[in-house]
Amino acid sequence: MSHNSFGHLFRVTTFGESHGVAIGCVVDGCPPRLALTAADIQRDLDRRRPGQSRFTTQRREPDEVRILSGVMMDDGSGEQVTTGSPIALMIENVDQRSKDYSEIRDLYRPGHADYTYDAKYGLRDYRGGGRASARETAARVAAGAVARKIIPGMTVRAALVQMGPHAIDRDRWDWDEVARNPFFCPDKDKAALFEDYLDGIRKKGSSIGAVIEIVADGVPAGWGAPIYGKLDADLASAMMSINAVKGVEIGAGFLAAELSGEENADEMRMGNKGVTFLSNHAGGILGGISTGQPVVARFAVKPTSSILNPRRTVDRKGKETEIVTKGRHDPCVGIRAVPVGEAMMACVLADHFLRHRGQVSG
Amino acid sequence: MSHNSFGHLFRVTTFGESHGVAIGCVVDGCPPRLALTAADIQRDLDRRRPGQSRFTTQRREPDEVRILSGVMMDDGSGEQVTTGSPIALMIENVDQRSKDYSEIRDLYRPGHADYTYDAKYGLRDYRGGGRASARETAARVAAGAVARKIIPGMTVRAALVQMGPHAIDRDRWDWDEVARNPFFCPDKDKAALFEDYLDGIRKKGSSIGAVIEIVADGVPAGWGAPIYGKLDADLASAMMSINAVKGVEIGAGFLAAELSGEENADEMRMGNKGVTFLSNHAGGILGGISTGQPVVARFAVKPTSSILNPRRTVDRKGKETEIVTKGRHDPCVGIRAVPVGEAMMACVLADHFLRHRGQVSG
Amino acid sequence: MSHNSFGHLFRVTTFGESHGVAIGCVVDGCPPRLALTAADIQRDLDRRRPGQSRFTTQRREPDEVRILSGVMMDDGSGEQVTTGSPIALMIENVDQRSKDYSEIRDLYRPGHADYTYDAKYGLRDYRGGGRASARETAARVAAGAVARKIIPGMTVRAALVQMGPHAIDRDRWDWDEVARNPFFCPDKDKAALFEDYLDGIRKKGSSIGAVIEIVADGVPAGWGAPIYGKLDADLASAMMSINAVKGVEIGAGFLAAELSGEENADEMRMGNKGVTFLSNHAGGILGGISTGQPVVARFAVKPTSSILNPRRTVDRKGKETEIVTKGRHDPCVGIRAVPVGEAMMACVLADHFLRHRGQVSG
Amino acid sequence: MSHNSFGHLFRVTTFGESHGVAIGCVVDGCPPRLALTAADIQRDLDRRRPGQSRFTTQRREPDEVRILSGVMMDDGSGEQVTTGSPIALMIENVDQRSKDYSEIRDLYRPGHADYTYDAKYGLRDYRGGGRASARETAARVAAGAVARKIIPGMTVRAALVQMGPHAIDRDRWDWDEVARNPFFCPDKDKAALFEDYLDGIRKKGSSIGAVIEIVADGVPAGWGAPIYGKLDADLASAMMSINAVKGVEIGAGFLAAELSGEENADEMRMGNKGVTFLSNHAGGILGGISTGQPVVARFAVKPTSSILNPRRTVDRKGKETEIVTKGRHDPCVGIRAVPVGEAMMACVLADHFLRHRGQVSG
Repeated sequence: MSHNSFGHLFRVTTFGESHGVAIGCVVDGCPPRLALTAADIQRDLDRRRPGQSRFTTQRREPDEVRILSGVMMDDGSGEQVTTGSPIALMIENVDQRSKDYSEIRDLYRPGHADYTYDAKYGLRDYRGGGRASARETAARVAAGAVARKIIPGMTVRAALVQMGPHAIDRDRWDWDEVARNPFFCPDKDKAALFEDYLDGIRKKGSSIGAVIEIVADGVPAGWGAPIYGKLDADLASAMMSINAVKGVEIGAGFLAAELSGEENADEMRMGNKGVTFLSNHAGGILGGISTGQPVVARFAVKPTSSILNPRRTVDRKGKETEIVTKGRHDPCVGIRAVPVGEAMMACVLADHFLRHRGQVSG
Repeated sequence: MSHNSFGHLFRVTTFGESHGVAIGCVVDGCPPRLALTAADIQRDLDRRRPGQSRFTTQRREPDEVRILSGVMMDDGSGEQVTTGSPIALMIENVDQRSKDYSEIRDLYRPGHADYTYDAKYGLRDYRGGGRASARETAARVAAGAVARKIIPGMTVRAALVQMGPHAIDRDRWDWDEVARNPFFCPDKDKAALFEDYLDGIRKKGSSIGAVIEIVADGVPAGWGAPIYGKLDADLASAMMSINAVKGVEIGAGFLAAELSGEENADEMRMGNKGVTFLSNHAGGILGGISTGQPVVARFAVKPTSSILNPRRTVDRKGKETEIVTKGRHDPCVGIRAVPVGEAMMACVLADHFLRHRGQVSG
Repeated sequence: MSHNSFGHLFRVTTFGESHGVAIGCVVDGCPPRLALTAADIQRDLDRRRPGQSRFTTQRREPDEVRILSGVMMDDGSGEQVTTGSPIALMIENVDQRSKDYSEIRDLYRPGHADYTYDAKYGLRDYRGGGRASARETAARVAAGAVARKIIPGMTVRAALVQMGPHAIDRDRWDWDEVARNPFFCPDKDKAALFEDYLDGIRKKGSSIGAVIEIVADGVPAGWGAPIYGKLDADLASAMMSINAVKGVEIGAGFLAAELSGEENADEMRMGNKGVTFLSNHAGGILGGISTGQPVVARFAVKPTSSILNPRRTVDRKGKETEIVTKGRHDPCVGIRAVPVGEAMMACVLADHFLRHRGQVSG
Repeated sequence: MSHNSFGHLFRVTTFGESHGVAIGCVVDGCPPRLALTAADIQRDLDRRRPGQSRFTTQRREPDEVRILSGVMMDDGSGEQVTTGSPIALMIENVDQRSKDYSEIRDLYRPGHADYTYDAKYGLRDYRGGGRASARETAARVAAGAVARKIIPGMTVRAALVQMGPHAIDRDRWDWDEVARNPFFCPDKDKAALFEDYLDGIRKKGSSIGAVIEIVADGVPAGWGAPIYGKLDADLASAMMSINAVKGVEIGAGFLAAELSGEENADEMRMGNKGVTFLSNHAGGILGGISTGQPVVARFAVKPTSSILNPRRTVDRKGKETEIVTKGRHDPCVGIRAVPVGEAMMACVLADHFLRHRGQVSG
């Protein structure tokens, strides 16, 4: 058991605080002889990096990753490959500005983990959220880049599908659009709308929530496991472990509560490559095991609680007061959660791929 | 790692199939010297037992539990108490009627785990769903009864808050009402409505989904853990591992995506017993750690796929065909998920209580 | 984490006390479609069963195993096979005679776990040693019988190689002899000697220690894992977890401390089937990974502390006193540890077989 | 599960190869508010550091540790303290000289993990043993320094008690002597003898094995757990996971096989502070749980296989050949295993301290 690890055969342990020396992770259990360079990882990190538009925190972090272990040059292929040993990845913290936080050292920000960390540990790292900072998710993205290497033919993509009350139009879903706007939004029109909408939020010093959807294509039928090792149970845990996430759905999700058995169950037919389904309310998972359809998960991100408007709170000594959080924050922290959701999906699937191979082979 | 276990310090391993000899569980890590009898467990099992109204499957199972190990008479107190050793609980299967299932032996029921188990293991236990049967949840309820013994002063209750499109009126929430209707519904009027509504569903041979809400009172601030050991991540996994669950929420859940930072963050004040909050959008959890407010989780249950109306499917040999599932099924399997949700919440909290005590003492 | 489980992909959880209702285990992670009947398991249990000669405890236990879950008839093969679901095994306790133990209820037997269980839990199950009884090892043997099914072509055998000061002559090692004497001794002459020697011990009401050696043939090179997942580290833990074991060796073991680098390192040559070694000081394991040679482990069993001669001790209230343990005990508990050692070796290797397949395939 | 982690509540994950960028570890689960500086850790690392006498490898590594996370200045105490978050420790590799190893790139050194890593992974890091290098143990020592902080009043010390055939005289055991000679030997006379003896070994280009003994004082009765969570099972695994270890003993160890029940069982009396024992054959552990006596473990280290004398081997292509290992090696690698054994004992006890507190409280 470890509070800072997840996965079983593909196991990730992360470390580091927002304003410490470095953040990073150790990825254990990776199969050997997979080509892996820092550039492979950097590509994903760059998608999550803050400061890329006015819609994310202006903290300037290069987020440059170093591979400390677990790879070597393979004389045969001339490539750098994994060795089967633990892959340690480190990202040094550069733009820390601890002074920004001195005012709130003894105050609990409502909606933040300030109070609960203090209640648990008797102290808290007030500098930028410490371990509870969204910065920890960079380590997840780095691990996810390794996970992607493991599964041949699998693609994991995510998109922002709702911001505040504005949901995308699913008929206008275009994966190519995701890379073209600062919101990872697959609906071009909604992306335009979000630009105005979020500027309004930002200028008010407020923040707003969002919903992210992740889709994995190329997962064969049979991965996952019954009961407590369910693929969807592991996805639920993985997504809920992301900062600020308050809900997780698989396939039809909460809508399934409103459906009849006839509406919900995905009928089956034979296609060219075997079994096909006439719909995907299951989100690619039945009984905790993949069906061969795309695996679809969704999660809700709450609005960040670091806002410029004063809120009632208490301090460490139990005195009632008000707080305004200055710092440099994301008006919609859900945006940067998109690559994080992808990474978590990739890690969970890599783990289940290896677990399936362990128990059932092939 | 174990596909049939959950929890760390309070660890539950379940076994058994719908139509096998017995189902049961081993509860490991229970503190010693807690009074525990079979009657304590039976009480919870009786709430989940099928056949108690026309709204649940007519399978007749006494679900009588035996404690095989882990308890002894304490000479001091004259009570039967836990010893700290693993508590094995067994429930023999009585009313199995395997013949009901012979027709579907080679068919995959749409929306069921039939196809995925077969894809994974190369065979499936077609008798009553085998391991994928809702019957497995009896073992969870038994384990939950043990978990409840561990935490002094904690109450875990659940209720059905939505059936199909009909949500309860939260202003009419009455916990006492939950025991008075066959739906575990806290809203008397909606319970009356559900009676007619579900009769209609049942008579049509159809089924419908539901939403369950679980509330734990008496959880102090400080339980849970950061990052991957988050209380909400463990709850998400625990709830999603229940058969037919497709979505999980904590506190405001998906609604949080629509809220502003001002609306969502629960403001703090000082009360008689320390910190209080002016709302509970957080569902009692911030940063993965309990706030001292009620812990609130919610999950969506899909409609059972065992319905009387014909559905298109394929058989094990890849032939397209139709299927009608006769058997004895629940028109709204979400009803019996209510005590199961309670049990999972109790188990997760018991585990985190012990984990917190391990790392931080007190 | 679980105090009553071991293994990762092949995971065994045991339960039950000497004088409770039943003992047993849940074996999780077993691959599907392996032929498995109760008779397969009974065969191994019968080798461990007490009361088979005057050299083991006279407790009369049929030790009849029931498979509660995880198997079904396979229509194709007409055999009962594993399904991939957890296999629960139960052995009811029959010959309990709890009254034998009433005298020692408040006394701590020197060399027993009486005092430490009480120190830990604030109570202890004084009936026959409770959970600390050698009876728990029956569950291990049952799990081991399942483990043996998993690895094609592997043989795991064990023998008693030393009793008190009398070690066998390794030049006279004959595996066939092991089944012919009540000591599992591979040296016919020493077996004859042990008969007299142990009769003397038994008649004096004393007891004696022993050394057991386990050999696994047919383990290919490449199983196991570096560092903390070493095959030998897992074997050490598995063997040390057997009651009364005080030392574990792999290959040359403690003798390796006296060897030079030239003497110890096993030189390598090419044989018909690939790499061969000119000796096996490594015991088939280098760097925690199997070499393809026989895997050889050895463990020392202390003499049982239940003896007829009075020993100085204290009672639960802290009063100094003397104790004589009557009961029905093994003069050399090491004898019955032979099939237990085999079972533990089989379980560890099954686990590593699956773990290797998970990470590296093939 | 993780091949590069150990412990449960106090959990250590190590990474890094002999000739990679850095080695290090992540220590998860450490209680908060313990004073901890890099200097605390450096002290232990310096005891293990190579190149301190002519009896250890001449590789020159400063082994300077950096704390990357998990600590902060505590305003109250003015000290740097743990926060409860994962503590990442990094030691950069400085003196790597990869060229030394180019000759053996395609050869398997007998007695090394070269062949088995290659058999498992299809490649191996030939530079200085890669992950299988003794260098990995620096990370253990660093983790052990953190572990020592957790348990108030506990002392863990180790000594070299045998080199080749020369065992120390236990009547001459002097803990103060351990720091005065380059062998960590508690017997002054034997230390003098070792000096000559090992010079002889070294000059011949040979190597020799050793036995290390670790003693933990100040462990109260009641730590550890029954069955597979036994304190001695975890110690056995921890010690056997150290490179080159081939045997582990607790208390009387293999000698217990030769003892009678009367001789072996430690009699009990009442002392000033409660129960005392008249001997410690148990090594402070009964039934897997601590007795309150010193916890005593011992392990045998084989001679390093990197020797200057030619040995028969094969290469990666299956050609028979001879090998001479030049490099810079330890003539008795057991010497540097002394602080490593201490560290492993400290980590296992810290873990069990927290586990005990979790299940049974204070």
